Amino acid sequence: MGEPVLRKAIEPGRWDRVDILRYKQEGEAPFEGVTRQVLFEDAGGAQWRYFEVAPAGHTTLERHQHTHAVMVLHGRGRCLVGDRLYDVGERDLVCVPPLTWHQFRADDQAALGFLCLVSRERDRPQLPTPQQIAQLRADPVLAAFIRT
Amino acid sequence: MGEPVLRKAIEPGRWDRVDILRYKQEGEAPFEGVTRQVLFEDAGGAQWRYFEVAPAGHTTLERHQHTHAVMVLHGRGRCLVGDRLYDVGERDLVCVPPLTWHQFRADDQAALGFLCLVSRERDRPQLPTPQQIAQLRADPVLAAFIRT
Repeated sequence: MGEPVLRKAIEPGRWDRVDILRYKQEGEAPFEGVTRQVLFEDAGGAQWRYFEVAPAGHTTLERHQHTHAVMVLHGRGRCLVGDRLYDVGERDLVCVPPLTWHQFRADDQAALGFLCLVSRERDRPQLPTPQQIAQLRADPVLAAFIRT
Repeated sequence: MGEPVLRKAIEPGRWDRVDILRYKQEGEAPFEGVTRQVLFEDAGGAQWRYFEVAPAGHTTLERHQHTHAVMVLHGRGRCLVGDRLYDVGERDLVCVPPLTWHQFRADDQAALGFLCLVSRERDRPQLPTPQQIAQLRADPVLAAFIRT
């Protein structure tokens, strides 16, 4: 590991010597108000990231072969995993299985910050086709939730 | 991953459907007041654990080839990494490099709970020999800190 032995937390979601990065390139995929920080490039073979979704923001609706192991670190929001919505708050654990549609949204009044572990070597996310979006929207609960 | 999609946090350091395990077998190695929980068996190829050290407790003084990627989740304490002591508190990040002596101690008045990522396949910890303990104790600051 190339990281220093100790990096202090400065405030919730901010650390000494951890850069705040773009979530994705603008225009690459739909998202709103998300930042990304890499806490450990190699955490036992995984990459350990922290994402922060601004109030009313959302991550990209996508799926991929690799899994996500998630812990909410602060704030609250909701997430789609597969065909269900889940309310999430501090310290909750979320598992996103392979090839499962998922999207995280922060509450309107609170940011959502979460840890997310992925394999260092992983496939690129797939975006839903118009047909797949229509299938998700067949459920009115999901139709009201998803952002594309 | 075999984990359910959502496991709610019940209170700090406790989750729905996450068992509280022994840190190690009694008598296997010196430690005091430590529990272990496996949050994700496979988090991007790593095992994601949560350890809680009771007030005045300590983990085992040990080293191994595999690395530790650590985030303090609650409480405070101190840790030895190599030949230095570090004060640690909530959200601080600690990196333990390969073959580096390390030990975590909770404050006398506060438990220390921390996340720790390791490779799922890893070598067994080495305990210090009497000679290695004597070398660490040559530094009076470390001599006052370490528990063996």
